[in-house]
Amino acid sequence: MPELSNAAMERIMRKAGAERVSATAVAELAEAMEEYGTRLSKEAIELVRHAGRKTVKKEDVKLAARRSGPI
Amino acid sequence: MPELSNAAMERIMRKAGAERVSATAVAELAEAMEEYGTRLSKEAIELVRHAGRKTVKKEDVKLAARRSGPI
Repeated sequence: MPELSNAAMERIMRKAGAERVSATAVAELAEAMEEYGTRLSKEAIELVRHAGRKTVKKEDVKLAARRSGPI
Repeated sequence: MPELSNAAMERIMRKAGAERVSATAVAELAEAMEEYGTRLSKEAIELVRHAGRKTVKKEDVKLAARRSGPI
């Protein structure tokens, strides 16, 4: 499930202060971030259904992120 | 800090089961995912420095993700 580009992952790591980054670390970050995004999305979709709606709105993602606790 | 594309965010949400997705929800997901990625990266970089290395490796990201707890 490679939705996130290596270039984006590397920029995020460099912005965070990384000096050198291995290719496998980049891939690992992409996987962890995508997993997190999928989990948030599923949580948001549950909230949407609970509210009797069909469209995922900003507030659903926000609440899902809050519910997911400290990361 | 827009590193993640809207198209990728929308694909992640659709894969997770979303029927319809608002543009602001897509932006919100990008922000939450990038925040998570930044936090993981900083945590990984701390582990790298602690180990006296300069290169972030896969294992650093993995351990950072585990330390960040359930998401």
